[in-house]
Amino acid sequence: MVGKEFPCLDKGFVRLIDVMGDDAAIVQAARVSYGSGTKKVHEDRGLIRYLMRHLHTTPFEMVEFKFHVKLPIFVARQWIRHRTANVNEYSGRYSEMKDEFYVPAADQVRAQSASNKQGRSDTAFAPEEAARIRQTMEQTQDRLYAEYQDLLSTELAREIARINLPVSNYTEWYWKIDLHNLFHFLRLRIDDHAQYEIRVYGEAIAQIVKAAVPIAYEAFEDYILHSERFSGKELAALASVVGEHTFDEGALEAFGLKGREAREFLDKLAQLKG
Amino acid sequence: MVGKEFPCLDKGFVRLIDVMGDDAAIVQAARVSYGSGTKKVHEDRGLIRYLMRHLHTTPFEMVEFKFHVKLPIFVARQWIRHRTANVNEYSGRYSEMKDEFYVPAADQVRAQSASNKQGRSDTAFAPEEAARIRQTMEQTQDRLYAEYQDLLSTELAREIARINLPVSNYTEWYWKIDLHNLFHFLRLRIDDHAQYEIRVYGEAIAQIVKAAVPIAYEAFEDYILHSERFSGKELAALASVVGEHTFDEGALEAFGLKGREAREFLDKLAQLKG
Amino acid sequence: MVGKEFPCLDKGFVRLIDVMGDDAAIVQAARVSYGSGTKKVHEDRGLIRYLMRHLHTTPFEMVEFKFHVKLPIFVARQWIRHRTANVNEYSGRYSEMKDEFYVPAADQVRAQSASNKQGRSDTAFAPEEAARIRQTMEQTQDRLYAEYQDLLSTELAREIARINLPVSNYTEWYWKIDLHNLFHFLRLRIDDHAQYEIRVYGEAIAQIVKAAVPIAYEAFEDYILHSERFSGKELAALASVVGEHTFDEGALEAFGLKGREAREFLDKLAQLKG
Amino acid sequence: MVGKEFPCLDKGFVRLIDVMGDDAAIVQAARVSYGSGTKKVHEDRGLIRYLMRHLHTTPFEMVEFKFHVKLPIFVARQWIRHRTANVNEYSGRYSEMKDEFYVPAADQVRAQSASNKQGRSDTAFAPEEAARIRQTMEQTQDRLYAEYQDLLSTELAREIARINLPVSNYTEWYWKIDLHNLFHFLRLRIDDHAQYEIRVYGEAIAQIVKAAVPIAYEAFEDYILHSERFSGKELAALASVVGEHTFDEGALEAFGLKGREAREFLDKLAQLKG
Repeated sequence: MVGKEFPCLDKGFVRLIDVMGDDAAIVQAARVSYGSGTKKVHEDRGLIRYLMRHLHTTPFEMVEFKFHVKLPIFVARQWIRHRTANVNEYSGRYSEMKDEFYVPAADQVRAQSASNKQGRSDTAFAPEEAARIRQTMEQTQDRLYAEYQDLLSTELAREIARINLPVSNYTEWYWKIDLHNLFHFLRLRIDDHAQYEIRVYGEAIAQIVKAAVPIAYEAFEDYILHSERFSGKELAALASVVGEHTFDEGALEAFGLKGREAREFLDKLAQLKG
Repeated sequence: MVGKEFPCLDKGFVRLIDVMGDDAAIVQAARVSYGSGTKKVHEDRGLIRYLMRHLHTTPFEMVEFKFHVKLPIFVARQWIRHRTANVNEYSGRYSEMKDEFYVPAADQVRAQSASNKQGRSDTAFAPEEAARIRQTMEQTQDRLYAEYQDLLSTELAREIARINLPVSNYTEWYWKIDLHNLFHFLRLRIDDHAQYEIRVYGEAIAQIVKAAVPIAYEAFEDYILHSERFSGKELAALASVVGEHTFDEGALEAFGLKGREAREFLDKLAQLKG
Repeated sequence: MVGKEFPCLDKGFVRLIDVMGDDAAIVQAARVSYGSGTKKVHEDRGLIRYLMRHLHTTPFEMVEFKFHVKLPIFVARQWIRHRTANVNEYSGRYSEMKDEFYVPAADQVRAQSASNKQGRSDTAFAPEEAARIRQTMEQTQDRLYAEYQDLLSTELAREIARINLPVSNYTEWYWKIDLHNLFHFLRLRIDDHAQYEIRVYGEAIAQIVKAAVPIAYEAFEDYILHSERFSGKELAALASVVGEHTFDEGALEAFGLKGREAREFLDKLAQLKG
Repeated sequence: MVGKEFPCLDKGFVRLIDVMGDDAAIVQAARVSYGSGTKKVHEDRGLIRYLMRHLHTTPFEMVEFKFHVKLPIFVARQWIRHRTANVNEYSGRYSEMKDEFYVPAADQVRAQSASNKQGRSDTAFAPEEAARIRQTMEQTQDRLYAEYQDLLSTELAREIARINLPVSNYTEWYWKIDLHNLFHFLRLRIDDHAQYEIRVYGEAIAQIVKAAVPIAYEAFEDYILHSERFSGKELAALASVVGEHTFDEGALEAFGLKGREAREFLDKLAQLKG
């Protein structure tokens, strides 16, 4: 996986530079915490799943990823809000910004969502309308880059010349983060509510993480990504329906729930019923 | 609330030193992010609940609490694992440790839990047995403190003389944390799986927080403390029961679910059914 | 100080929203750490200066500031690199970006620095040249905002329509940070090597901090801002000159060095001489 | 280096588990920030030294170390105050604490320092006195461990039984930290003011770091460890002596100062003289 470029958007990419640790490193760290007691009970996969399910997050911090990412500035601005990470970004003060700008693909040229104040709707503009918008955007970007070049040719300081470059301009960075915080990043950025343009990067990173720590990633999918949280009031509403129902062992196995996980599910149901 | 001492365990306490912000400060910060658009839709309470429900955690970081806490060293060792906080602790290098040690109350002298590798069982030892153990503990603590005093009287450096003091010895600190991270602390430390001795502090702090930011605390209870998360597999099992059921508006209101919250619940159910 | 707007650049500002603690709060926290022993020796001012001089930074973390800031996006991008802080920023996904853009004042329209790869030179362009550049910048900003409005009027989603807005566009945020980390911010951002546009904000914040914690700020100036660090090799070079020299008490007092500080200086000199 | 155990104190150790990156990784990350411009000017060693000298700390964050450490609890309590790190510690709730306790070597059995409120003096107790103290400590530790075993044999929960174990008891953890924060740890913990017992660990880690990133470590020694900071007032005092002196190129080279470093030193001197 290391070094392979995953293209993102029209001109960006994610590339794994280095990784420290794997599924075994998570287990190794957890065994220090939980001591020899755990050795017999859990095999590795079970232990990793147990840790994820019960929010024992520190062993996941023992795996570290470093990526090289090329991304538009407006995506970088959302991304950088994840503070527990290390970043070295290309600097427009030291070096010339490059002539690369993001233009949304035609099918992403969409109206404001009616239901979601922060998002776009599910249907694209008519093709001609989208084409027109894309063309306008590109022309503007060309003009802005030409102006930037003009300013540089007057010897104007780079740090001033770049102030009218748009947030669609591509930048680059090295980004290093531990697996626990990376899962948190993915949870928020793979989500439907994330802006499409950062979601594309989230999905590329998810592929890399899945290959690097397959057991941990599967646990993340089962217990976080594909899970759902119900509030106290919602649980009461659920209980009014589920209340009469009982699950036998066979029924639970049919859903993939067995052993400790099955017992934990039955405990949750028992609590639901009060 | 400021200055009031909440006794914890046999000799400890929690005391609020200062607080910056309240429920209104959360709203104020959120309105900067979400702009004027939100002004009409939500009143304050609805906005705070929306933020909590949807993990928009940054506005909660805008409220800050500072506590003075007196606690046994073994509790301090669990507590300090919450890294996103500021701490000034009493130093056994600069000053003499004090003659104060934690002794569990008789009803907390309990056997190892059979089901929970890290906890104690639900029933206490027989009173005489508990009394005997408590007495032994106290005698040991007395002896250890006397030895500490002996060592200090030889002029031995404080930083060495204290190394045989036990982790039941009380220490003190100032502890400052923002509300988002404090909720995370409470979630883990009020929980059944937390050691009883830190839970006592968690509950004292919860009272203070509830008084300081009542709307945010109520949202925390509804959507985090009293909530339950179901994994992908568990959701499938739930769906097999809930699948046929529909809730009408009146039924939901009976559970306290209305408006946006009711719609969100119905959306979750719809997803459950696939 | 709370609420007062400090104008920055052409359209920005810094405004103190709230502050928790003052010089006394630093002392209060330090006294917990260092115990009663310190009570007699130091008065408050001396203690604060001692803490600053010896990098005992945690008591400074016990003071917290919250600001409301309006700033160009390219300044926000530098600012946000300070990770140990809390931020709520205006969102271009939720709300329309406003028609406000930074245009450098004529005397800041300068050439690339010859000596500093990341900065601008000390002399401004000729007035007509600067005026021409400023006019071009403003025209571009007007055109870009008009295009943004056009895109919004086609119902294009706000999160896409804004991608060609330039990094000179103003944004706003609430920013909360503890005093230790704020001093670190100021140290880097008041510095000559910081870009002028963020330095302006640093200097406004410095005024506010100076008023809020005058003793701590003075210590910060003496021991950090106005200090200089010499490497091992540089110390050897210095020693070759200073080696023969001795300072008597009176001479040191003339430089404002007395008591503990004078002794510490003589200790440094003694080490210099080997 | 990986896997090699560095013994520390009487029963502890530090062991490098894994490392991500090396000197080249620092350069690689810096080149992203500073762009192609730096490529020609600096060779790698010069660039790393430049970064260290000018507090461009983020490229050093791109290297990550993971250690396995066995250490007394009182050392662990000082160590954990470094918050920007990841930790998995052995848990006395899950597992039995082990029969291993720190006893200071005879030459570390010393009186309270007269000058340093937090430290010990430079001379050890008389051998017989030290031997007596060591023997008392060991006997106490034996008795405490026997009591712990007695309590466990009554089935008392581990999390309670351990509360009278002393802070000299050994614990273990996995500890992961980036190079920038590790340098900060070393700076504080190799220092004379650090307690001897943590300094021993600091020095073991320093050896490992020196082997892993020799160029960065050398820069850390030159510009941080062996450097000295002078306050504004101290600089004025220095200036009164150095004022008349000039260094020519040859003189500076004799101190190992040449090229950019020599120029920077002359700049500092010029500022000194006002």
